[in-house]
Amino acid sequence: MSIKLSTIPTNAPESANKKKIEAKTAELANKIGEMQHKLYAEGKQSLLVILQGMDASGKDGTVKTVFADCNPSGIDAYAFKKPTEQEFAHDFLWRVHKLAPQKGNIMIFNRSHYEDILIQRVHKWITEERVEKRMSAINAFEELLEFDNNTKVLKFYMHISKERQQEKLQERIDDPTKNWKHNQADWDENDHWDEYMKCYEYAINKSNIEWHIAPCDKRYYRNYFIATKVLETLEAMNPQLPLLDKTDE
Amino acid sequence: MSIKLSTIPTNAPESANKKKIEAKTAELANKIGEMQHKLYAEGKQSLLVILQGMDASGKDGTVKTVFADCNPSGIDAYAFKKPTEQEFAHDFLWRVHKLAPQKGNIMIFNRSHYEDILIQRVHKWITEERVEKRMSAINAFEELLEFDNNTKVLKFYMHISKERQQEKLQERIDDPTKNWKHNQADWDENDHWDEYMKCYEYAINKSNIEWHIAPCDKRYYRNYFIATKVLETLEAMNPQLPLLDKTDE
Repeated sequence: MSIKLSTIPTNAPESANKKKIEAKTAELANKIGEMQHKLYAEGKQSLLVILQGMDASGKDGTVKTVFADCNPSGIDAYAFKKPTEQEFAHDFLWRVHKLAPQKGNIMIFNRSHYEDILIQRVHKWITEERVEKRMSAINAFEELLEFDNNTKVLKFYMHISKERQQEKLQERIDDPTKNWKHNQADWDENDHWDEYMKCYEYAINKSNIEWHIAPCDKRYYRNYFIATKVLETLEAMNPQLPLLDKTDE
Repeated sequence: MSIKLSTIPTNAPESANKKKIEAKTAELANKIGEMQHKLYAEGKQSLLVILQGMDASGKDGTVKTVFADCNPSGIDAYAFKKPTEQEFAHDFLWRVHKLAPQKGNIMIFNRSHYEDILIQRVHKWITEERVEKRMSAINAFEELLEFDNNTKVLKFYMHISKERQQEKLQERIDDPTKNWKHNQADWDENDHWDEYMKCYEYAINKSNIEWHIAPCDKRYYRNYFIATKVLETLEAMNPQLPLLDKTDE
């Protein structure tokens, strides 16, 4: 079944109550912290969370809110930027594979290897043939993490509307506390909106591991949606605190 | 077409003249050094040489002789040992991918990711299902290096006879200058010879990228055989010294 992004809401449901949902999200974050502790103590499985979306879709804010109660010893977040010269001198998964979480840990990718079939494809820096090969390599890579290291790969497409993105980019100009996030290049990418949507749909529909489409127009609802899926995933992984065997005492 | 190792000679051809072949090998090593310089200067392609074989098949000696005239700036060799605790906390390709050569460089793997479907399989530390998945992951990984980073993957199976291996292991006991290489575990692995051969045949026959079967009973012939293939490969890669464009002068 193929996903069409334009048919999926970016906004919160009309019935959503912001106050109540924020309170629920705080509870979810607390439970996520407890599960992370167990995952770390168990040391047998790991979780890779991939946040992928347009500028201003709220990747940074999600990391901050959803994982607020985690112990930094067992969690890390990495924001992928333009590759360095050394990274460009290797295959596109080289810099990514190094950052795969070790057993017991959570790793959050703020952007990811999907950029290499998104921005690079939109600007035609790579051929369509290479896009297809990279997509197969991504599937093989994510499956490797799952079967060989008990790593659960949990992917979110941060679904924001074009109009809402423009508002948020404008906030970065108008609000001095957000000026540091302003970048003219983000406005230029906004011009390529429709092409980006097509490339995202390709990545989502060709992935062997499922994507979750997070409605991101409202920050509070986005955090709630993602926290819910993260907690569900950790609960399904069911990490166990190791107990000492007392039978010999 | 399936390879059967027992039908392939481990020894040098009867007609081989040791003195002449050693002289030829020195010439080959010299040319390999020249090609490596071009590869490094060009900075657009890379070469990954994988040496995989039983103990005492001559991996170290090959590295030393065949690449004797290369400039260390553009070449590196890595001998894979038992994984560290941190490496074991990741998928089996994690430690390998980090060492993939950057554009312009040659990387030599002394042992490799194939150990993870050889020693681990012989000792039944992993299931047959996992062996198959790892084999697919290896194929995807090697293809990724080739299509996304212009890395040529050149693999050698170091083909030595069981009897010749025993002689060489005995030399390590009898010759004080070789005592440092002695390891009781190598003798234990010799007991599993037939199972190793079956696992090597599986790896060779399931690989998408071709293996070269190097006859390794005689050191001089092994070096000559491998140097010939390495030089052929570098010549086919055809690296070019970049020239300044003088048309504007």
